[in-house]
Amino acid sequence: MIKRLLAKRSVVWCFGLMACLAGSLLPAYAAAPQGETHLITMKAVNLPSGQLAYQMLAYKIKSKDGEIRDVTDRYEQVPTVPGPTIILTEGDVAEVTLEHGIKGSKLPVSIHVHGVHYKIEDDGTIKAMNKKVDSAAFPGKPYTYHWEAAPGTAGTWPYHDHTFGNPRLGSEDKGLYGAVIVNPKSGKVPALIDGKIVDVNLSDVKREFVLWMHETTFWGAEINHLLDGRQIPLWSNPTVGARLGELIRFHVIGIGTAFHTFHLHGHRWLEQGTKNVVDAVNIGPISRQSFVVKAGEGVGPGAWQYHCHVLQHMQSGMMGVFRVVE
Amino acid sequence: MIKRLLAKRSVVWCFGLMACLAGSLLPAYAAAPQGETHLITMKAVNLPSGQLAYQMLAYKIKSKDGEIRDVTDRYEQVPTVPGPTIILTEGDVAEVTLEHGIKGSKLPVSIHVHGVHYKIEDDGTIKAMNKKVDSAAFPGKPYTYHWEAAPGTAGTWPYHDHTFGNPRLGSEDKGLYGAVIVNPKSGKVPALIDGKIVDVNLSDVKREFVLWMHETTFWGAEINHLLDGRQIPLWSNPTVGARLGELIRFHVIGIGTAFHTFHLHGHRWLEQGTKNVVDAVNIGPISRQSFVVKAGEGVGPGAWQYHCHVLQHMQSGMMGVFRVVE
Amino acid sequence: MIKRLLAKRSVVWCFGLMACLAGSLLPAYAAAPQGETHLITMKAVNLPSGQLAYQMLAYKIKSKDGEIRDVTDRYEQVPTVPGPTIILTEGDVAEVTLEHGIKGSKLPVSIHVHGVHYKIEDDGTIKAMNKKVDSAAFPGKPYTYHWEAAPGTAGTWPYHDHTFGNPRLGSEDKGLYGAVIVNPKSGKVPALIDGKIVDVNLSDVKREFVLWMHETTFWGAEINHLLDGRQIPLWSNPTVGARLGELIRFHVIGIGTAFHTFHLHGHRWLEQGTKNVVDAVNIGPISRQSFVVKAGEGVGPGAWQYHCHVLQHMQSGMMGVFRVVE
Repeated sequence: MIKRLLAKRSVVWCFGLMACLAGSLLPAYAAAPQGETHLITMKAVNLPSGQLAYQMLAYKIKSKDGEIRDVTDRYEQVPTVPGPTIILTEGDVAEVTLEHGIKGSKLPVSIHVHGVHYKIEDDGTIKAMNKKVDSAAFPGKPYTYHWEAAPGTAGTWPYHDHTFGNPRLGSEDKGLYGAVIVNPKSGKVPALIDGKIVDVNLSDVKREFVLWMHETTFWGAEINHLLDGRQIPLWSNPTVGARLGELIRFHVIGIGTAFHTFHLHGHRWLEQGTKNVVDAVNIGPISRQSFVVKAGEGVGPGAWQYHCHVLQHMQSGMMGVFRVVE
Repeated sequence: MIKRLLAKRSVVWCFGLMACLAGSLLPAYAAAPQGETHLITMKAVNLPSGQLAYQMLAYKIKSKDGEIRDVTDRYEQVPTVPGPTIILTEGDVAEVTLEHGIKGSKLPVSIHVHGVHYKIEDDGTIKAMNKKVDSAAFPGKPYTYHWEAAPGTAGTWPYHDHTFGNPRLGSEDKGLYGAVIVNPKSGKVPALIDGKIVDVNLSDVKREFVLWMHETTFWGAEINHLLDGRQIPLWSNPTVGARLGELIRFHVIGIGTAFHTFHLHGHRWLEQGTKNVVDAVNIGPISRQSFVVKAGEGVGPGAWQYHCHVLQHMQSGMMGVFRVVE
Repeated sequence: MIKRLLAKRSVVWCFGLMACLAGSLLPAYAAAPQGETHLITMKAVNLPSGQLAYQMLAYKIKSKDGEIRDVTDRYEQVPTVPGPTIILTEGDVAEVTLEHGIKGSKLPVSIHVHGVHYKIEDDGTIKAMNKKVDSAAFPGKPYTYHWEAAPGTAGTWPYHDHTFGNPRLGSEDKGLYGAVIVNPKSGKVPALIDGKIVDVNLSDVKREFVLWMHETTFWGAEINHLLDGRQIPLWSNPTVGARLGELIRFHVIGIGTAFHTFHLHGHRWLEQGTKNVVDAVNIGPISRQSFVVKAGEGVGPGAWQYHCHVLQHMQSGMMGVFRVVE
């Protein structure tokens, strides 16, 4: 534990030094961040519904120059499904502390993150699996994870519990999941806009919708850039909205056991990492699809349905609306 | 309704004018077509099998110069599963009128199309969903859909009912589905030919096979370009045929609830939109794969099986033959 | 049979002639190889577990100059699940003889291969399917398959039985499957290394892990290039290992009926044939994913879990460890 704290301190200490020797003294995965440092505290708690959920308690961002700004109020001060979306840029690091707030259980709860760099201590698994440490919070004993959004990790990644329950493989299916969006250093992503493949500036995106596909339900959240990145919990099968012509970014992620096909009416997009123009994509558990559309492009305003195209899921109500207004 | 008819008339009127002001007077999604106008009438009917099916009644194509040619006889004058394939080119528009011919039911039946541009009135959903109109045919009251194969919509897209049945989400699983192929304006698609990735001229493709994967059965149709685009219904798990060396285009589309892997013996192709060389691809409901092969390339003539590689589906007889002859 | 033997002999005879007229006398799929000829004998047998398995009996490689080297001892002299991995390079050919060693059954057993070129006689299916021949071994009657790893066939391909059992569609689900890796002539594959997309020399890859995803179990094998390509059977849900910084190639292949999402902790890679950076991919039966990672890149040593991310599969124990040590 002391070793962990020391490691943490030395990284922090580096921030103020332009000529930090991190490169020679520390392994690559612990180098000083080239971007911002995200200091995050979350808590895993019970919901009245019987689900479990992550709650944002505190979120501060430290710039390279050491300036700190508190962005906690971007988040609702309640637990949500999906959990809070964490937005990084290539070069950023995050220190995420998790508190155990699940009543009636002493089982460890964790955050296992995808995509970004982290050491085995930060794997979010139990010691029996990672051979090193119970990488999880216990009642009264928070746990801090160190992540590095290194170059090459741009993308939309899930995080989720990997220790709670019996067997101790995690309770992601109970609601303990959320997304980490790592934006590319370039600030641009390819998209199909006005019928052409172009690079879109992410700073021009007005809203982002995170939609999780879990068995027969969508669970959603909005990140509203017109409101300084405010995150709006949308819960199940939500109506999401946009003004005609706005650039909108969708992040669709699977979780649980079922396979899905995500379809959005009246819109089409570039399948991630390819030149394939689609309006429906296969989504398996933890597979994902991030894409930008121009709201109502070529089709105008309307209550455009999005739904799973697996017939049984659709008939179980796995649908929502993308409302485009003038 | 009058508004709809007027909109239609103004578009038609534009066709004869070279200096049509459509660009400034009409929204982008109602601009004068840069290509041909497809005037199509179909009917949704019962089959003796208990399935439902679309039937082609009339198909006329109006050129930019206003010349009309009747291509109805490209289609069998009977209802088929899958429904008639509609073939457009980027820049074309289609006016598709659907008649309700399902005996014993007054429930609305519709055509919801993927990929192309259309207004919310043409969504093929009920008013409770699209908040505008019952976008569907009722007994004695046909409904006309306006589609625009705008630039950037090239691809193989499904169309299907989205209103029949209870709940009114559609009866695609009963047989009410078909394909729209939007060919790129360039006339070319990438393909793996003689071991190299090249651009193939679609005008060199001799036959196209549309194969739908529905639960444990393939449902197919052939478009034969040696017979001026004649469409040949193939029904279930068909044998399809080609001469050695012919360029053949497959369109594989999923529907219903099951996930599949489409495999074709002895041939390999470029996974759509990528450089991935495959001979088996994941197909979920409404996900799709369009590709060109040279029949028998490097392997010669033979009764080459195609089948779902999900073992249970294969054992249920989800197989057909791609017969390549000299 | 005589015809087959003659064809075989004429091909062999060609090897010693620089000015072989194969191009004009033989169809393309029987041309003289531009690379090496792999002479392989395998046997399909029963395992005490009730499974069936392929066993390597003999493996010789003949160079273009006619030199022969025996590489049989790269393989364990026992039947394994998955079966022996066969490694070719674009331009190579293989003659694979299969013996029938399944006790208590006279049903034919075969090898149906994916990806490479072969004639319909080498399809590994029964005559009722391929309309030509029972392309399979019977008790006392081995069968020889001719494969050509022609240009454009680079990739990781499954082979499996396609005739045993009732119906005679194959017993791949009983253990009769293995992989053919066709390496590109260029010797290079794209990979995400140190956060950048680069071309990796396959000669720099130290170990390859072949992991089959079958219902709720991984079945694996290692190809160790530090031990001259020795193949090490790993059986079910194995721990695989690497030294920090080594280039490691994974080949993940589905089989059977279930769909999976393959996830590896702490690492990310390029989805095959795309620029999509992933750490989880959809794997259906016979769909596959081949990729290179730098062991522990940016994350250091550790017991990094790999597992199916379908929750029910994970909870059924569909997990293993990628152990990275310094």
